[in-house]
Amino acid sequence: MKTVNAYAAPSATEPLVPTTIERRDVGPKDVLIRIAYAGICHSDIHTVRGEWGPQQYPLTVGHEIVGVVEEAGSEVTLHKVGDRVGVGCMVDSCRTCANCQQGEEQYCLNGNTGTYAGVDRDGSITQGGYSTHIVVVEDFVLSVPESIPYEAAAPLLCAGVTTYSPLAHWNAGPGKKVAVVGLGGLGHMAVKIAHAMGAEVTVLSQTLSKEDDGKRFGAEYYYATSDPDTFKQLANTFDLIINTVSAKIDLDAYLSLLGLDGTMVNVGAPADALPLHVFTLFNQRRSFAGSGIGSIRETQEMLDFCAEHGIAPEIELIPADGINEAYERVLASDVRYRFVIDAATLA
Amino acid sequence: MKTVNAYAAPSATEPLVPTTIERRDVGPKDVLIRIAYAGICHSDIHTVRGEWGPQQYPLTVGHEIVGVVEEAGSEVTLHKVGDRVGVGCMVDSCRTCANCQQGEEQYCLNGNTGTYAGVDRDGSITQGGYSTHIVVVEDFVLSVPESIPYEAAAPLLCAGVTTYSPLAHWNAGPGKKVAVVGLGGLGHMAVKIAHAMGAEVTVLSQTLSKEDDGKRFGAEYYYATSDPDTFKQLANTFDLIINTVSAKIDLDAYLSLLGLDGTMVNVGAPADALPLHVFTLFNQRRSFAGSGIGSIRETQEMLDFCAEHGIAPEIELIPADGINEAYERVLASDVRYRFVIDAATLA
Repeated sequence: MKTVNAYAAPSATEPLVPTTIERRDVGPKDVLIRIAYAGICHSDIHTVRGEWGPQQYPLTVGHEIVGVVEEAGSEVTLHKVGDRVGVGCMVDSCRTCANCQQGEEQYCLNGNTGTYAGVDRDGSITQGGYSTHIVVVEDFVLSVPESIPYEAAAPLLCAGVTTYSPLAHWNAGPGKKVAVVGLGGLGHMAVKIAHAMGAEVTVLSQTLSKEDDGKRFGAEYYYATSDPDTFKQLANTFDLIINTVSAKIDLDAYLSLLGLDGTMVNVGAPADALPLHVFTLFNQRRSFAGSGIGSIRETQEMLDFCAEHGIAPEIELIPADGINEAYERVLASDVRYRFVIDAATLA
Repeated sequence: MKTVNAYAAPSATEPLVPTTIERRDVGPKDVLIRIAYAGICHSDIHTVRGEWGPQQYPLTVGHEIVGVVEEAGSEVTLHKVGDRVGVGCMVDSCRTCANCQQGEEQYCLNGNTGTYAGVDRDGSITQGGYSTHIVVVEDFVLSVPESIPYEAAAPLLCAGVTTYSPLAHWNAGPGKKVAVVGLGGLGHMAVKIAHAMGAEVTVLSQTLSKEDDGKRFGAEYYYATSDPDTFKQLANTFDLIINTVSAKIDLDAYLSLLGLDGTMVNVGAPADALPLHVFTLFNQRRSFAGSGIGSIRETQEMLDFCAEHGIAPEIELIPADGINEAYERVLASDVRYRFVIDAATLA
């Protein structure tokens, strides 16, 4: 066991505090990663505050992790000491179910092991990336191309793959009209990736306040959803809508923007049930779908795609003692576009 | 103009009564059909009673029509006098929009012209198939293979294609697990067609009362949805669910039966909004979709498919003066499985 520095929540209602946590010994197939940067995802806040179910405390969150391999187990073949690597939202899965067998371990029928707040093989609760080190089995460790700016790479491990996966699965590309709802951490990555895939990208945001950014990231068009004309003007338009917003939206209104055989995919996760009129789906044979993170294969594909296309998240680098303030700013949508913790400040 | 016998509703609240209606003169591209049989669809009842919006009365409904060509316009090339033909839910479309251009005129962006209660090119309100004759432009007239039993063919024009279309579009076939929710007019056709396509078919019905029928139609398995164990047992199972039920169902419960990349398609049309938890869609990357009738191309494909596979609806033949009683029995789910009006009783 190795004791390492971390930031943890003592309870659902208290601010995060500096502490130490234990990392398991490096097994034959494990790598020990010295964390360089860890992104702050809205899911971290939901989880740590118990909004997605009760948790065991103290809890260290963070599932957008980049760093360097400091030690590799005796049987490790995929990574070596000194490699730049990443860890995303999961650190293991059952590997035996039909979904794991076909490389879709994010949908593991026995439940994948979350990078934090998950139950590890040894029964312990997994602790995330707001920490100096983490030990992860090599198959769930990604190779991060050196050409991606180091401090900006972390958010790709969640925000990047969570948007890349549905864009790739639903064939965003040349000739396709893609709308991205919300220009936050996920939304701004969706715009950059969809544009790089060759799709025509439209941002649907509450106001036009980030229009310049959206267009700089690759959007062709930018509409305010607070303007009812937007919904009239864009009826039956899109092949694919990626909804990154967790707020309760009017599903029928957004779905009515889909053209023939169009799909709206939610990657934002509203906790409450949303009302939906089936008639909206009859028209134009529309679909409403969900997508959760992405597979390890897709995550690597996304990292390589971002390296090839020169894509990186827009980030604001903070020291560890800025985490609690950053949380408040995330909740106030006051971040352009992702906070990243400099893990050197935890050492 | 030709005056023909028909059954019509004088208002939203009165029973249907015998009357006469006018059919337009046969234009160069029209065919005049002497109607032999007309199916009774639940939509007829919804429409005639104003449940899907206000209507102009008197109104003759019916959009499951088979008969014989009695007269063909001078430019007609697709059908000739004496041919057995059918008419389904639409009798025209704009023919110029992107969807019409690609042969998906059921999703005409300018609205297809419904067989009844639609606005025809001349501004008149279309009148449906509870009648002795109808005049329809040849492109919206289907060829009905002689090998399909004549009196049973009519329901294929709506119930048949409404289920065939999503089964074909979402690739029901060998190796696919398909569930059909509800074993009524649409459901029993979905079972027969999906089975003939080679899929493994499961019926999900409120009770097991029609289990023998369901298995006779081609279902491998039959489960009662009134039994909560059904939902536990079948979690993450199906590739495709065709929901033929118009009643308000628990969407999350049914969607949870879908396996990886599974889709539930509603062809039943509940009027109210249904609540849906997005988290249900995240899991297994599920989709919820709608499908409305089918294209003319698909309708012909379905008729040929049914002829090839010896598939026909189960029907109960009634005289025209039995329509009002039949409506009550449809509403009480007391029909196995489709009422068909013998149009000879209208002459």
